[in-house]
Amino acid sequence: MNRKGILTVVSGFSGAGKGTLMKGLLSRYEDLYALSISATTRSPRPGEQDGREYFFRTREEFEQMIAQQELIEYACYVNNYYGTPKAYVEEQMALGKDVILEIEIQGARQVKRDFPEALLLFVTPPTSGELRKRLENRGTEDCDTIRCRLKRAAEEAEGIEEYDYLIVNDVLEECVETMHQIIQNEHYRAVRNIEFMDQFRKELKEF
Amino acid sequence: MNRKGILTVVSGFSGAGKGTLMKGLLSRYEDLYALSISATTRSPRPGEQDGREYFFRTREEFEQMIAQQELIEYACYVNNYYGTPKAYVEEQMALGKDVILEIEIQGARQVKRDFPEALLLFVTPPTSGELRKRLENRGTEDCDTIRCRLKRAAEEAEGIEEYDYLIVNDVLEECVETMHQIIQNEHYRAVRNIEFMDQFRKELKEF
Repeated sequence: MNRKGILTVVSGFSGAGKGTLMKGLLSRYEDLYALSISATTRSPRPGEQDGREYFFRTREEFEQMIAQQELIEYACYVNNYYGTPKAYVEEQMALGKDVILEIEIQGARQVKRDFPEALLLFVTPPTSGELRKRLENRGTEDCDTIRCRLKRAAEEAEGIEEYDYLIVNDVLEECVETMHQIIQNEHYRAVRNIEFMDQFRKELKEF
Repeated sequence: MNRKGILTVVSGFSGAGKGTLMKGLLSRYEDLYALSISATTRSPRPGEQDGREYFFRTREEFEQMIAQQELIEYACYVNNYYGTPKAYVEEQMALGKDVILEIEIQGARQVKRDFPEALLLFVTPPTSGELRKRLENRGTEDCDTIRCRLKRAAEEAEGIEEYDYLIVNDVLEECVETMHQIIQNEHYRAVRNIEFMDQFRKELKEF
């Protein structure tokens, strides 16, 4: 069966608990997964380390990566570039790791264009009321009214149909398991096992 | 989340162990699954009961079911009709049961045409050598040489790409679990949760 790594995009509402989910998944199954590390032009914050939280790059370096198509996806937020270097992702996938990209829908679309076999997961709280509660209890950097946060969530919700699975984050531990199983089951997809099938058929004909 | 039953087609090589797998799945999770009961025009064998192993029907009755489009799929083998009555399947799905149809590829294609959201699973032994061994150790009714059985397997193998998942039956207990998880994860598919998403989006806009 196929053990080539699966490129998995995880998106979801701010407040859906993506970060905690990812931490749970990686701490529980660290041999199976690799979290993609983004490149960015923003300055490191205290405690952040190049190659751990981000690959910190100058604007010139980043634009060169764009020009040389070294990024799977990139976007510009608040005057800084953020993007996913292709090399690291492909390296990890070749090692058999399922690589996780935590990005937003614009990035997800770019990934799907170049990697049509990518698995797209969208994380949501169980109800809109719960989302609202989580957003109200949470500070964000560049959006300080509840109304603004909810508007953002409504925008994020528009593209859900483009995702493969909707993952409801109600009980964290259960949600980590669900996500883990969905990604692992993806290895059994017929389209990911063409080589296995071809070999099997070839042998059947040779008997 | 979606709890409408999922129509699951299980096909696979003769000798792949489909029957044992189904029994394992249904005995372990009897609340979740229903095995579809086929209608047939062949005579009941000793111990078989109408509505349990099969719905036993006359040729006239069966042809009327065809004419009235009461069958999801049907085929003719050795001068007898076999088919899947729609009513039973829809009834069980409405109850939230994931309904399993154990049929061959021709039937799978008919199902997919009318139920495009059906989940198609193909069961295979881990290697062609293992398949050969199982076929050699097994009697079948209408095909008594190994060569003939292998030719049949090669034909069955031609359509594997049309299936969603390839399930390798190596260790039975593990295989039952894999199949169970693949079917259950299907409930998280975004396309099966359009209503949930629409409701969520509607509420977000009303806040």
